[in-house]
Amino acid sequence: MAKVSKARSLVGLADLDAVTIRELLASTKAMHKVLEKPSGDLPLAGRIVANLFFEDSTRTRTSFSVAAKRLGAEVVDLMGFASSVNKGETLVDTALNVEAMGVDAIVVRAKQSGAAEQIAAAVSCPVISGGDGRHEHPTQGLLDTYTLAESHGRLKGFDLRGLKVLIVGDVASSRVARSAIVGMSKLGAEVVCIGPPGLAPGGLASLGCIVSHDLDEHLPKADAVMMLRMQFERHDGDGAASGGERKSGVIASVREYRAGYALTAERAAKLRAGCVVMHPGPMNRGIEIDGEVADGERSVILRQVTNGVAVRMAVLSWCLAG
Amino acid sequence: MAKVSKARSLVGLADLDAVTIRELLASTKAMHKVLEKPSGDLPLAGRIVANLFFEDSTRTRTSFSVAAKRLGAEVVDLMGFASSVNKGETLVDTALNVEAMGVDAIVVRAKQSGAAEQIAAAVSCPVISGGDGRHEHPTQGLLDTYTLAESHGRLKGFDLRGLKVLIVGDVASSRVARSAIVGMSKLGAEVVCIGPPGLAPGGLASLGCIVSHDLDEHLPKADAVMMLRMQFERHDGDGAASGGERKSGVIASVREYRAGYALTAERAAKLRAGCVVMHPGPMNRGIEIDGEVADGERSVILRQVTNGVAVRMAVLSWCLAG
Amino acid sequence: MAKVSKARSLVGLADLDAVTIRELLASTKAMHKVLEKPSGDLPLAGRIVANLFFEDSTRTRTSFSVAAKRLGAEVVDLMGFASSVNKGETLVDTALNVEAMGVDAIVVRAKQSGAAEQIAAAVSCPVISGGDGRHEHPTQGLLDTYTLAESHGRLKGFDLRGLKVLIVGDVASSRVARSAIVGMSKLGAEVVCIGPPGLAPGGLASLGCIVSHDLDEHLPKADAVMMLRMQFERHDGDGAASGGERKSGVIASVREYRAGYALTAERAAKLRAGCVVMHPGPMNRGIEIDGEVADGERSVILRQVTNGVAVRMAVLSWCLAG
Repeated sequence: MAKVSKARSLVGLADLDAVTIRELLASTKAMHKVLEKPSGDLPLAGRIVANLFFEDSTRTRTSFSVAAKRLGAEVVDLMGFASSVNKGETLVDTALNVEAMGVDAIVVRAKQSGAAEQIAAAVSCPVISGGDGRHEHPTQGLLDTYTLAESHGRLKGFDLRGLKVLIVGDVASSRVARSAIVGMSKLGAEVVCIGPPGLAPGGLASLGCIVSHDLDEHLPKADAVMMLRMQFERHDGDGAASGGERKSGVIASVREYRAGYALTAERAAKLRAGCVVMHPGPMNRGIEIDGEVADGERSVILRQVTNGVAVRMAVLSWCLAG
Repeated sequence: MAKVSKARSLVGLADLDAVTIRELLASTKAMHKVLEKPSGDLPLAGRIVANLFFEDSTRTRTSFSVAAKRLGAEVVDLMGFASSVNKGETLVDTALNVEAMGVDAIVVRAKQSGAAEQIAAAVSCPVISGGDGRHEHPTQGLLDTYTLAESHGRLKGFDLRGLKVLIVGDVASSRVARSAIVGMSKLGAEVVCIGPPGLAPGGLASLGCIVSHDLDEHLPKADAVMMLRMQFERHDGDGAASGGERKSGVIASVREYRAGYALTAERAAKLRAGCVVMHPGPMNRGIEIDGEVADGERSVILRQVTNGVAVRMAVLSWCLAG
Repeated sequence: MAKVSKARSLVGLADLDAVTIRELLASTKAMHKVLEKPSGDLPLAGRIVANLFFEDSTRTRTSFSVAAKRLGAEVVDLMGFASSVNKGETLVDTALNVEAMGVDAIVVRAKQSGAAEQIAAAVSCPVISGGDGRHEHPTQGLLDTYTLAESHGRLKGFDLRGLKVLIVGDVASSRVARSAIVGMSKLGAEVVCIGPPGLAPGGLASLGCIVSHDLDEHLPKADAVMMLRMQFERHDGDGAASGGERKSGVIASVREYRAGYALTAERAAKLRAGCVVMHPGPMNRGIEIDGEVADGERSVILRQVTNGVAVRMAVLSWCLAG
């Protein structure tokens, strides 16, 4: 961490070394025990956490809110700025205003890549990224890493060596994928990013992962398969037409996409023992993942959500009590 | 209650027997005492209640929030899902996610009839309906029943026998009416639903009430008159034109509707001593009810709002402490 | 205060005498000490403050929320009524409903001038204006007055005699300006309102201020310059076209406006020692104020935000504990 003199912020996992990531994951494990047996001790009582969401996300915002409240902190939600903020400068102005109100930490979510870092550089209080543009979504990356470790009995040292993780779908534009790749590979896991060339371009390898366009080749050797949400702006129910403007030229059709990259029940049957299925949500059942796989025995999708609260408790403590 | 092994949920009054309804109303009475003299004892401290509102309702949401906070619980508001949820399945997915975050109870409001029951069947934590489609609005039904009992000195045993209640207006599509009919008649009151045939069809009798199209006939014998909100999508100020597309063919005009079914000052003068006037709000003054009646001596409309908080405190306690 | 028998409300500074304003500012100073060294004593624990915002304002709402939470109160946000409320009567109906839920104080914000007073007259609990139409924004006026006193070492007796304040821009339609004029001049400051004749008409003098159309004349003698936000509905980047429909005929262009009334770096260089720069935010950098002035040494703009929380703590205490 470069900012020793300032508050501890978390804007991305790329800034953290493996030791710090393991420290946060160990704290997450401790938070689960707090959740199971509340002692009445509220380490963040009297603190106020501001959810400064320039981009709406009810799930992430709620997860941070629950985490803060479980530690005794108060939460103020600042939404509705999205429409009035168009320039990075104003984004920082808004954050400076929020800080001037005397809040103790700011959770930032924004469409602009780099927004969290920009704000962390401007304010003095801790800043936690709740996802910024295509950059990172570090608490999601931590919860994915934690869930992988938990699923494979690696909660002691969080040593993920020997585990092979597939991240499947629109990897290129996914901050969730970016943070998961960084977090998991820093702890020793082998990460393979899989998708059609337009969604999983070779350049991703610079993040420390393998890039492939063939899901079926890797499937039988995986220890975890993380499916990403496919965001077709519009598509025919039949799957015969284009996959929406943004993806046009990248994906021919939903049917074709499913043929190559969906985690269907048929494909899930080929997974080896112990392999788990992950998804950051919300799911498109019947598109990138079949409903029976999402609800099946291998699925740890809801466990990811539960781990998300514990991870955010750990991060809030790390930033505020540290 | 069929679900003994699961958490206590409240999705409708139709599922409750008279004993349970009386238990909840007695608890409501106790909650009023807590509100008058707060002891500092907060039975739901450390609990988190999620307001999962797929359909917006500031009043109901706020009433549940105030009730939860008065008992020491924290509240997280989850709105904004309305646009993204179109299928019942996704509605349940969202609720499963909220539950996975570790909240202690979920208050659900949705446009889909049966949504609360569907969600209660899927999750393990208590689910409380804040109104679902045309099905039920059980806490509103309880507060209406409580207000009726209170107005007539029946707070001891909540025995409503001998009381005659008129529910007037668009009864057919009103979940408020549905819950009030069930709650009041289970405790012995005689409920008469009144409106033009399109809004008060004979089939309503299956709920245990009498159906009539003649307000003036029943008015002098009523102990309470509950006016429902008339929802004209559009109408001429003069009342000469159609009452909006949804009602077209059902109501000829505002003027005609008022002539037959509004609680005007003139009609209110014919009410007998002790008869009270109720309205679930928000009111259309000058449409279904005259302003001077709404603000008059017989009106218990704001008392309904106050009772709503106490009822919700009772229901939250019943679900969470039970 | 006329309403002795009712709760203490704050709907405008015009209703307060200098003694009461000084009392509130002295309490603000005490609140700063509470914020610096929290004693754990929460004077408003168990109280619920309702933010009833008919007009959206994330900043003001958050400032009140933080203030309430710092004193131990709970907050319920009631937004989304804006669309359904069109008549004053319904506005009061909504407030009566909120009061009936048993909240301890209502913060009101509305587009209608006089809304706060109307509501304060109707309900029994304290009402605090968070800005109503073109009428007043009293807590903003108090924080501006406090900031002026603080900047010039007048925190002891809040005697502002001898200080000259310029309020520059669209004064006529600004409730912020109105409250600042009243608050500052009641404590002895000399207030000069400056803008083109359409925005700073002579009639403003009735509020107790001087009206001028010449910024450059007054600039070198000012102790504080408060820039107001210029709200051009639309304008050409070049500044050659009209300043939007509402202002058309009032302002010829952004370029012309800047030439006469913006606080540019060049103008700021002419300010005398000790003169501070204020702005209620959000700023249009490069329009009414240059970025380097907003961020410069004279700027107390973020201090205004911090003082805003302390002022609102003082006002909430005054209304609720008084």
